[in-house]
Amino acid sequence: MNYDGYFATALAQLQDEGNYRVFADLERHRGNFPQATNHGAQTRNVTIWCSNDYLGMGQHPDVLSAMHEALDKVGAGAGGTRNISGTTHNHVLLEAELADLHNKEAALLFTSGYVSNWAALGTLAAKIPDCLVLSDALNHASMIEGIRHSKAERQIWRHNDLEHLEQLLAAQPLERAKLIAFESVYSMDGDIAPIAEICDLAAKYNAMTYLDEVHAVGLYGPRGGGIAEREGLMDRVTVIEGTLGKAFGVMGGYIAASADLCDFVRSFASGFIFTTALPPAVAAGAAASIRHLKSSAAERAAQKKKVAEVRARLDAIGIPHIDNPSHIIPVMVGDPVKCKYLSDILMRDYGIYIQPINYPTVPKGTERLRITPSPVHSDADIDHLVGALETLWTQCQLARLPMAAQ
Amino acid sequence: MNYDGYFATALAQLQDEGNYRVFADLERHRGNFPQATNHGAQTRNVTIWCSNDYLGMGQHPDVLSAMHEALDKVGAGAGGTRNISGTTHNHVLLEAELADLHNKEAALLFTSGYVSNWAALGTLAAKIPDCLVLSDALNHASMIEGIRHSKAERQIWRHNDLEHLEQLLAAQPLERAKLIAFESVYSMDGDIAPIAEICDLAAKYNAMTYLDEVHAVGLYGPRGGGIAEREGLMDRVTVIEGTLGKAFGVMGGYIAASADLCDFVRSFASGFIFTTALPPAVAAGAAASIRHLKSSAAERAAQKKKVAEVRARLDAIGIPHIDNPSHIIPVMVGDPVKCKYLSDILMRDYGIYIQPINYPTVPKGTERLRITPSPVHSDADIDHLVGALETLWTQCQLARLPMAAQ
Ligand SMILES: Cc1ncc(COP(=O)(O)O)c(C=O)c1O
Ligand SMILES: Cc1ncc(COP(=O)(O)O)c(C=O)c1O
Repeated sequence: MNYDGYFATALAQLQDEGNYRVFADLERHRGNFPQATNHGAQTRNVTIWCSNDYLGMGQHPDVLSAMHEALDKVGAGAGGTRNISGTTHNHVLLEAELADLHNKEAALLFTSGYVSNWAALGTLAAKIPDCLVLSDALNHASMIEGIRHSKAERQIWRHNDLEHLEQLLAAQPLERAKLIAFESVYSMDGDIAPIAEICDLAAKYNAMTYLDEVHAVGLYGPRGGGIAEREGLMDRVTVIEGTLGKAFGVMGGYIAASADLCDFVRSFASGFIFTTALPPAVAAGAAASIRHLKSSAAERAAQKKKVAEVRARLDAIGIPHIDNPSHIIPVMVGDPVKCKYLSDILMRDYGIYIQPINYPTVPKGTERLRITPSPVHSDADIDHLVGALETLWTQCQLARLPMAAQ
Repeated sequence: MNYDGYFATALAQLQDEGNYRVFADLERHRGNFPQATNHGAQTRNVTIWCSNDYLGMGQHPDVLSAMHEALDKVGAGAGGTRNISGTTHNHVLLEAELADLHNKEAALLFTSGYVSNWAALGTLAAKIPDCLVLSDALNHASMIEGIRHSKAERQIWRHNDLEHLEQLLAAQPLERAKLIAFESVYSMDGDIAPIAEICDLAAKYNAMTYLDEVHAVGLYGPRGGGIAEREGLMDRVTVIEGTLGKAFGVMGGYIAASADLCDFVRSFASGFIFTTALPPAVAAGAAASIRHLKSSAAERAAQKKKVAEVRARLDAIGIPHIDNPSHIIPVMVGDPVKCKYLSDILMRDYGIYIQPINYPTVPKGTERLRITPSPVHSDADIDHLVGALETLWTQCQLARLPMAAQ
């Protein structure tokens, strides 16, 4: 075995396929987001159009002052796992904030949304005797890995297909444990699951529900509780999972559920137990962000307006994007090399940063430019973006077919 | 299936066994560590004796000012995955700092040490064709989960047993891919692996080596590169893995290795790809901590002195602890209920916080109080600790047998 040769060959193959990923080396500027400096081959200023800091909360004064204050008060790291000296008062307060956000008895923090899905699904499905997991076909990698980790039986239902889900549920004995795992806003296509109907099926067939609201928390519902809050369904969902790293602008993940369920995961999940807790300042910043978005709807309203505007402008010039009821605008390209080329030209000639989304984040053949307008994108930013895309679409002779039906 | 009943029963059982974990709700005080406020049933001041902020770097002025500065300059969160707008200049600089620390071509950051082990081992062992993983019997949960995730064949060698390792290696064809996974300082017993001899075996049998230095980085070697640095072995180890959450005082994890190996893991590891990057301020704080400990040996020397002092004082009164060549002092109790009782009394009557270490962190029957002296524990702190343990050992009629041979 020649290890070095093996790695080199695998990397060369990625290059050949057009799937080799080059990371932009960005420096954001507080107070000036979405503007940033790109420390690439040539350092230059860019406008970020693909951030998941959807509302710009990563530069919100409340968030930053909470973080500064915590650093001053308690220092940098937690210094231990949650069990061994790493639970700080900031963690306790944040968990209370999260339980309140989702109107649940309790919440449990993890180091990331990824780890929360992996650890919570992995533990629930592994421990609950003979649990069957019913997993939406487009679930996020972190959910898939958690389910796989559990070694529980898994059945995949066609994406958002209630009939298929019911068929699978009906085929099982009522008394068998079942866990339906799905997302609210699917991040790459931007479509939204029929949560009420899924909860109806769960009730009918005695199943638990596990809902990933990672791309919805902070963004939907009167207090930013997500799609389930907006639709009055939080009490019908068994477990709501979310992130502190996207709309809330910081980092971390969590589940919100009954006190016993959270305590159960707390007690048994390897990915929760055997890892250093989040820095208290991170917890403090996230709590401040949640608190702000519970009472302020201004950011959500402004984002909605910008999203609608970008969509309308793209429609006006026939740039194909997936039509969906969320804040995500996927402009479809369908080829990794073209997609990267467009992204490179946008960066080089226009100072517009939109990372090409390719395999394995999306299936091969569905490569795209995923645009996420925020409240802090200006009208001039939008003009510049739309103008650049129009020029490129013409230059590159790309199709201007609406792709809403794909 | 009655889900609520299931959770309640499982939790009750943990209570009965004495394995139910109660987290201390701590508030550290910057500049005053290891002193903290415990927001428990009765709020009180405590001295922390079980932190993994081994050197007190979590309150170091360089670390804190780097974090404040990054917050002011670039804001709170990274705003995306490393690929999609989440790579910031602070990440790039930190990876360079880490590569330099371990004298490797490259380093790759993860959200935690747990995730770095899980994702790196999981990816290497899964992708390298027909890879056999040889795993030390006492490897950390995160390594075990990564190996399990890979679905590669795994053989477990008896802890630090070179003969057993060689036996397993010799039984394999030379050309088969093999990965030897082990730690340097084992965190619960504090013993240290024979790295040089393991590297000799790896060379002889054409194996890669993967070394977890989580409890050694920052603490050993002239620049804090770990045990492999101290012993001049960094270039012989294929992958060095570490954390930014223990001696470095912040949060995060990494691997350091060849450029191609890091690029390979970067390109294929789900746990690296599909998650929000560390906040830039966390990366900045960690980089400042590493930089400081590269040039200052004062913290390491002071810690060594305190550790020796605590050990000698415990020996003088016959309190049993595992003798080992590291900074970790495991005082053996061997029963979860007694261990928790001792910890509770230390907290309640003495204001000393040492979390009981029980299953699943250590095997049942080896429950312990794990003491980690730091440079910032004062002589008075040590007097108070030793006095309290002496009183309790007498009160509770606990054995005073030396346990070095166990
Ligand atoms: C649907 C979904 N769930 C979970 C995650 C992971 O969350 P985090 O970034 O906090 O790890 C992501 C993205 O990163 C996601 O898109
Ligand atoms: C040996 C070992 N490896 C890895 C980890 C995980 O590192 P982190 O706390 O950064 O997740 C730990 C402890 O948490 C550990 O003890």
